[in-house]
Amino acid sequence: MERRKFLAGAALAGTGTVLAAPMVNAQNAKTMTIVSTWPRDFPGLGLSAQRLAARITEVSNGAIQTEYFAAGERVGAFDSFDEVASGNSQAYIGADYYWVGKHPAYAYFTAVPFGMTTAEQNAWVKFGGGQELWDQLGAEFGVKGLLAGNTGTQAGGWFNKEINSPDDLQGLKMRIPGLGGNVMSKLGASTVSLPGGQIYENLVSGAIEATEWVGPYNDYFMKFYEAAKYYYTAGMHEPGSALALGMNADWWGGLSDYEKAVITAACMEENAAQYEETVALNGVYLQRLIDEHGVEIKSFNDDVWDAFGEASEEVTEEVREHSEMAATINDSYQDFIRSAGGMMAQFEVAFVNQRNRYLGLTD
Amino acid sequence: MERRKFLAGAALAGTGTVLAAPMVNAQNAKTMTIVSTWPRDFPGLGLSAQRLAARITEVSNGAIQTEYFAAGERVGAFDSFDEVASGNSQAYIGADYYWVGKHPAYAYFTAVPFGMTTAEQNAWVKFGGGQELWDQLGAEFGVKGLLAGNTGTQAGGWFNKEINSPDDLQGLKMRIPGLGGNVMSKLGASTVSLPGGQIYENLVSGAIEATEWVGPYNDYFMKFYEAAKYYYTAGMHEPGSALALGMNADWWGGLSDYEKAVITAACMEENAAQYEETVALNGVYLQRLIDEHGVEIKSFNDDVWDAFGEASEEVTEEVREHSEMAATINDSYQDFIRSAGGMMAQFEVAFVNQRNRYLGLTD
Repeated sequence: MERRKFLAGAALAGTGTVLAAPMVNAQNAKTMTIVSTWPRDFPGLGLSAQRLAARITEVSNGAIQTEYFAAGERVGAFDSFDEVASGNSQAYIGADYYWVGKHPAYAYFTAVPFGMTTAEQNAWVKFGGGQELWDQLGAEFGVKGLLAGNTGTQAGGWFNKEINSPDDLQGLKMRIPGLGGNVMSKLGASTVSLPGGQIYENLVSGAIEATEWVGPYNDYFMKFYEAAKYYYTAGMHEPGSALALGMNADWWGGLSDYEKAVITAACMEENAAQYEETVALNGVYLQRLIDEHGVEIKSFNDDVWDAFGEASEEVTEEVREHSEMAATINDSYQDFIRSAGGMMAQFEVAFVNQRNRYLGLTD
Repeated sequence: MERRKFLAGAALAGTGTVLAAPMVNAQNAKTMTIVSTWPRDFPGLGLSAQRLAARITEVSNGAIQTEYFAAGERVGAFDSFDEVASGNSQAYIGADYYWVGKHPAYAYFTAVPFGMTTAEQNAWVKFGGGQELWDQLGAEFGVKGLLAGNTGTQAGGWFNKEINSPDDLQGLKMRIPGLGGNVMSKLGASTVSLPGGQIYENLVSGAIEATEWVGPYNDYFMKFYEAAKYYYTAGMHEPGSALALGMNADWWGGLSDYEKAVITAACMEENAAQYEETVALNGVYLQRLIDEHGVEIKSFNDDVWDAFGEASEEVTEEVREHSEMAATINDSYQDFIRSAGGMMAQFEVAFVNQRNRYLGLTD
């Protein structure tokens, strides 16, 4: 009873901030400094990262004391990888496709155009050989990744004109980073990569005519509707964007099995939760965008999707040609789409299409 | 270093059996006796439950010592609820729709016909008000439920004749329990509920002409293909079957915040993992059923799906009329399908249909 009373007294409330931890395990506690690619308290991405950092301390009963630094508080967002690889911090939370400059195969551990949905991505990493490939890739840089969040299928984006054929993409100035940007470039668009905080001003000034970000819940707070009237639902570029806890590999290797188990369990809990929160909130915020801001909801037609498909194949083939590692990862990923995605087409997707047809829920 | 070496020495290998736990927290350890509705080492369901039981001990560093009893080892599968409500054991792992005799609204915490997919179900429980309703329902019986696994969209089942119209269901003797059985009964089938271990013999003897079980990975080991040639892919009856860790509510209420956090994190990790394992393996086992056993894969046509839809509406309306609690739960559940499911139709489902069309992956 003593222990329980003590713990109850030490428990603290709070969401989106690092919890002071119960002190039971504090004598042997390890410090885990976590940097992030997201601004503090950013709806969706930032809050999820902060929740995970706090949860590791909580689930370890204080044996692992996390310190969380949002983007810019310790290092800049895009310096997170080097910060961790060097051992200066123990971990980052972010999207691994930011590191395609280190190795293009990092794209497969966030999202690639015409790639996997969230469930498929999680299944591939955990039960389809993806984690082992991620570990091999990370070993080149001294970083160990674990799944730590997912934002689901991203919206096609915000446009100031309708996209009725692939020709409408010619010359379009669009903010879209990563391989999705390469696909749009192949189709004639003029693409740029801008951090989240600079998109709005560029869209309002007319420097760009279109942008993608995440989906209704995350996008709502960005106010893009003030400058771009048309909101396209499903995009081709990030069908199920996985986020990562990237750890210094030597530090990870020195942890006990117990410490590894706690970090893994907390990551898997948040990996599921962020996606499920998105599923719960995207519908609510999509409706608010329509009702409060008169946003016009659009979807790409089959001709545009076919063009996306062809350009995506070209782009992933280029990644494949980079190296043996890239080819191995691409081939494992693409095979899994055929096996698991092909099965899902016959089961979950077939069911949901029939249910939605019957209920009148369509794209 | 002492602590790390000690833990490394205490770590044990093993899948599907209860691990002996590291003893760091053993002095203050709580015992958690878990009974289950699944036979020991049952592929899919049984292995997942055993993994969760072991994981709670592991992630708590021995602070919660779990003892796991498969179906029949301590109490019979269907006595698990009373065993836990009475406080004789602390928890069960099973499917909450087994308890519709206690209250029909328990169906919503596993699966209902024409209901939610796995992602929608998880999102509703965690972020759409479902957990609060589950807690209210459980309070009537002294049981607290947490999500603890999911087997995805179940197969339509094994049939010894083709189902080309709703008329083909007339008089069909089929094993299908729960609300799915009620739907089939409305369409003229003669349905029975049999535990897993008795299905095969009834199918071989001709006492039943059709049965559903889970999906390719789980079904492969049941050998139904020896007596029923046609395997129907997506069914209407269980679009995303959630499994539960049901705990004695008084016991749960007496846990510290730390102990609750550990149990919750382990449950959420397994809740995701079982589904993702199914996603990874169902495609592999579907192919094995075809290649090794010549199983003919079929899908229901739109006429049959329409009949399923109408009968499902009637069945859930009957549940709704049971009580205010049932109506509240049904309405929350159905509203969430329209909001979250409607959004998913425009995003993830729209994407995956376009990707699958382009790649030639169809039902």
